[in-house]
Amino acid sequence: MKASDLKQHIRNVRDFPEKGIVFRDITTLLTKPDAFNRSIDLLLDAVKGQQIDTVVAIEARGFIFGGALASRLNAGFVPVRKSGKLPADTLERTYSLEYGSDTLAIHRDAINPKAKVLMFDDLLATGGTMEASCRMVDELGGEIVSCLFLIELAFLNGREKLTHYPVQSLVVYDEE
Amino acid sequence: MKASDLKQHIRNVRDFPEKGIVFRDITTLLTKPDAFNRSIDLLLDAVKGQQIDTVVAIEARGFIFGGALASRLNAGFVPVRKSGKLPADTLERTYSLEYGSDTLAIHRDAINPKAKVLMFDDLLATGGTMEASCRMVDELGGEIVSCLFLIELAFLNGREKLTHYPVQSLVVYDEE
Repeated sequence: MKASDLKQHIRNVRDFPEKGIVFRDITTLLTKPDAFNRSIDLLLDAVKGQQIDTVVAIEARGFIFGGALASRLNAGFVPVRKSGKLPADTLERTYSLEYGSDTLAIHRDAINPKAKVLMFDDLLATGGTMEASCRMVDELGGEIVSCLFLIELAFLNGREKLTHYPVQSLVVYDEE
Repeated sequence: MKASDLKQHIRNVRDFPEKGIVFRDITTLLTKPDAFNRSIDLLLDAVKGQQIDTVVAIEARGFIFGGALASRLNAGFVPVRKSGKLPADTLERTYSLEYGSDTLAIHRDAINPKAKVLMFDDLLATGGTMEASCRMVDELGGEIVSCLFLIELAFLNGREKLTHYPVQSLVVYDEE
């Protein structure tokens, strides 16, 4: 199963979360053990041979693959969460959304200086969430090896926000 | 490393999320590859020899271990999420919290009838979230093999809400 074959397991849901949007739903991929494990293998292939000390994954869907990747890489796992969810001392960053803004948080003691970090989220859309997450990891002294995504919505040009970092994705949609 | 040894990697945060609560913070365990992977191994030991077709994990922290467990078991992964997050046709269930209520959702097509299901969440507190999740899986025809938790706050008696199901936990706190 090639990366492009994974697309057949991703469900297209029209008008979610709002009218005019086609939502790429990975839950149909996750229910199939072969497709789920193949996705994990292909994500690992993307960073093969690179030292990775820590996997940083973004709430909430990023956690599903993020934990599995960290386990397979024998790396630590660090969650980026919405503000108010992490209990200890956090670094926070507010970023703009299409309407309004959102604030993400990471524990300040979660990233060792110079740690080699794999950033993971399931979806690259406009890139705002990943950019905010990367900047926090930068500020804490981590060295970002890759920003890795299962799905990239290339027509939203999220890579333009992430030009400081290597960006990789498995399944690319060129149009909505 | 025995299950009880995992406790040393769990951070106790006082007065979170509110005054008087000691929050058991697993992020300090997750950052340590040995402790994280040992936790996964011990969770798998708890269901060793049992057929498991699907791992159902509860948003958001449940996803971190849930994805890794599903991958290792070669089972499907199904998320239980807050209402409004899942894009396709859902079954929903509202349950009481100490103040107010919350609504959880699962995709109706995510559980095959008679599927052997492992339910996972990181924390068993009062049991309301897991009970609501189990009832949805029951209604969709899944057969629950185990309700598995990394941490159990035994003094909150969550097991009393889950008497219909086998309940297992790795790390037990007998008092706050």
